[in-house]
Amino acid sequence: MKTLIIGGSATGMGVAARLRRNDMNMDITVIQDKDYVSLGACGLPYFVANNFEEKNTLIAREKEKFEESNIKIISNSKVESVNFKENKVFYKDNYETYDKLVIAVGAKPIRPNIKGIEGENIFVLTTLEDGVLLKDKMNNDNSIKKVAIIGAGFIGLEMCESLSELKKDVYLLEMEEKIMQRAFDSEISELIENKLEEKKINTLLGEQLIEIKLKNNKVNSILLKSGKEIEVDAVLLSVGFQPNTQFLKDSGLEMNERGTIIVNTKGETNIEHVYSAGDCAVSKNFINQEDIYSPLATIASKFSKVIADNIAGKQVEFVGSIQSAILRLFDLEIARTGLTEQIAVNKGIKVKSTFIKDKDHTNYTPNQKDLYLKLIINEDTKEIIGAQMAGSNNSILRIYALAALIWQKAKIDNALEQIDLPYAPPFSRSVDIIHIALSKLNK
Amino acid sequence: MKTLIIGGSATGMGVAARLRRNDMNMDITVIQDKDYVSLGACGLPYFVANNFEEKNTLIAREKEKFEESNIKIISNSKVESVNFKENKVFYKDNYETYDKLVIAVGAKPIRPNIKGIEGENIFVLTTLEDGVLLKDKMNNDNSIKKVAIIGAGFIGLEMCESLSELKKDVYLLEMEEKIMQRAFDSEISELIENKLEEKKINTLLGEQLIEIKLKNNKVNSILLKSGKEIEVDAVLLSVGFQPNTQFLKDSGLEMNERGTIIVNTKGETNIEHVYSAGDCAVSKNFINQEDIYSPLATIASKFSKVIADNIAGKQVEFVGSIQSAILRLFDLEIARTGLTEQIAVNKGIKVKSTFIKDKDHTNYTPNQKDLYLKLIINEDTKEIIGAQMAGSNNSILRIYALAALIWQKAKIDNALEQIDLPYAPPFSRSVDIIHIALSKLNK
Repeated sequence: MKTLIIGGSATGMGVAARLRRNDMNMDITVIQDKDYVSLGACGLPYFVANNFEEKNTLIAREKEKFEESNIKIISNSKVESVNFKENKVFYKDNYETYDKLVIAVGAKPIRPNIKGIEGENIFVLTTLEDGVLLKDKMNNDNSIKKVAIIGAGFIGLEMCESLSELKKDVYLLEMEEKIMQRAFDSEISELIENKLEEKKINTLLGEQLIEIKLKNNKVNSILLKSGKEIEVDAVLLSVGFQPNTQFLKDSGLEMNERGTIIVNTKGETNIEHVYSAGDCAVSKNFINQEDIYSPLATIASKFSKVIADNIAGKQVEFVGSIQSAILRLFDLEIARTGLTEQIAVNKGIKVKSTFIKDKDHTNYTPNQKDLYLKLIINEDTKEIIGAQMAGSNNSILRIYALAALIWQKAKIDNALEQIDLPYAPPFSRSVDIIHIALSKLNK
Repeated sequence: MKTLIIGGSATGMGVAARLRRNDMNMDITVIQDKDYVSLGACGLPYFVANNFEEKNTLIAREKEKFEESNIKIISNSKVESVNFKENKVFYKDNYETYDKLVIAVGAKPIRPNIKGIEGENIFVLTTLEDGVLLKDKMNNDNSIKKVAIIGAGFIGLEMCESLSELKKDVYLLEMEEKIMQRAFDSEISELIENKLEEKKINTLLGEQLIEIKLKNNKVNSILLKSGKEIEVDAVLLSVGFQPNTQFLKDSGLEMNERGTIIVNTKGETNIEHVYSAGDCAVSKNFINQEDIYSPLATIASKFSKVIADNIAGKQVEFVGSIQSAILRLFDLEIARTGLTEQIAVNKGIKVKSTFIKDKDHTNYTPNQKDLYLKLIINEDTKEIIGAQMAGSNNSILRIYALAALIWQKAKIDNALEQIDLPYAPPFSRSVDIIHIALSKLNK
């Protein structure tokens, strides 16, 4: 049997590696458009900010290592079309056949269709080439002093820190009225906004980019819907992702209107023997089983295992994600899991929530810091459905407990209020912030 | 109705405060042998090591605050006996009556009955007076250069760090063959032993103190069962605790052979209207519902709420503890929860375990450190029953997730293997150490 995988990033190579572990003899071929495989793209902001210099540090596992496991890799080859009836994948002047096909082509940053978008000094940050170019320009082109980041998602925020470290004046543009309002409720958004202000990031909320004005074909200013014009020397686009699925249009593969491939919990598409996962496919929300588009490494890594196991004949399902995410923004750490209160309300869930401001540990051990927790339950079922934290000193890692409780569909009651979390003065207070929140919600 | 509480520490004052919140009119009286109440005794090692100078920092809530809530406190009054038939508690030449009685007298450090034990420069560390004395001696008595710590429990280990900071030569004596072998399995014990060695703590395992040799009535050396004699200038006893229940002997109150008061999950003793909790009473092991003696602040704090609620007429139970604990030892952090493998095996549980050595976060963000996880399941039920971690950078706070999973009686399966924990390069790796361990155990 031959499994063909389109795409050499985390998902594709994850499937390949797991397949090989499952089956020593399967013909496994990866076809992909880059020279390298298995990029750890999450590290790109740290590469740009000179946390390290060797770009190959970002390669989780070299091509040669896969080839040693007898995984065939066809590189620098962009797939142009698929004939699902004949089980053929076409690239250049060639094609590959398959018994099982895994589409793991990922996504690319959205480029808004506005005037000036093709000018120089307009960057994105998804591939290694993107990273190398951006790092070079930001470190070596002295004409770039002011940079506009378009879109305050996780990458946009990480790049605020990276570009500040490189002494750039940063303008952060966000269409929504609050920072990260789809990922966090307003209490945490405000903490993020305060941190950006403290760190001299020029944050423009509720603003939309409508034109990039060029001079000698280089970025000269950005024009906003409000009429504001801001002089900048470069633009970083981080407004979201679009699945790399244009080549599959009209192929018969089911996709939604954004080009996201529809899969079930086994990673199966509407076409037999064809699987997909990662940033080009939908996944499930664990809590309500809705299809979501959530291009996170954590989901890709788990879903790729599921697909490999299913191809190997096991019956495994991806049970979903609660979109757990964590971010360091300068010295502010934030994390989230489950549904936000706002999203839960929008979905018609009767919610009860509490927002606690406390400290990370006792006042008599060094470096005590503020710690915040928003905790959300479904008031009908009493289940915990969401949590958000902000703090310092890695203290927000306690959100792991809340992710675990959501995962186990834990209900608020006296027994849960007594959950036994460890205490010692340098780590916590004898009544932890989680206990305070559970107690508030158990009334 | 009048509730009388014997003891002014965390448990007693916890009951008092919660009772007052439950009932504005109840007569609440605390009788206790000290001048102060609600000592945060866990902070004593940090006080001794000069993390702070003001001893009252350790008082969680001043007497006056309680009195403002109309809680009567009779201080400096050691209870001498109780007549449970007449509902009378005797102290000095006086007595108090009660409708409900809460015995929260705590425990005192065990003083082994050996020659020399009454000499000078032999310390314990439980009360504020103990702390003030030890701090004074360790900081101001230049004749004290070498200190023997007897017993390598949590306090013994914390004091290794504190006394090292004060430039003492520290000798740590432990009867067992491995450090902390009742709290940790050998993999973690070894990491602790290595850290002690690195930090020049002279650790003597499998050794028992049989005599303290005095000179001019001051500590001069300790004599061990092996015949070894070590010259030291002071001794700190931290071999364990003994409930302060001698005054209750032959009173009719049920206690075990160690003088620990037997209570049920409501905190009720064998005598009607008489409750007990904290360091003088047993509590339940959440996993197997066995009675245990576990003098931890986290248990006292929860059990005191349970008692107050029951006195107020609610029906609340203490569901038990999994003896979650965490400790910083120099730059090594360790944490535990649930049963150790050794204890589980001794109890006849069929266990499966894994020990993982990994890193706390990605290699390309600063300060990456080793991270260790031991995870233990019951192979018959597939439930997670224990976890132990060691690491740095607060990375071991992820044990909160494992405490939560034990609390929810989570079973190892494909769904649990997919638990959605947050990932970003400064905090974790895309496949977290918890995922690695779950995956190993789900086979």
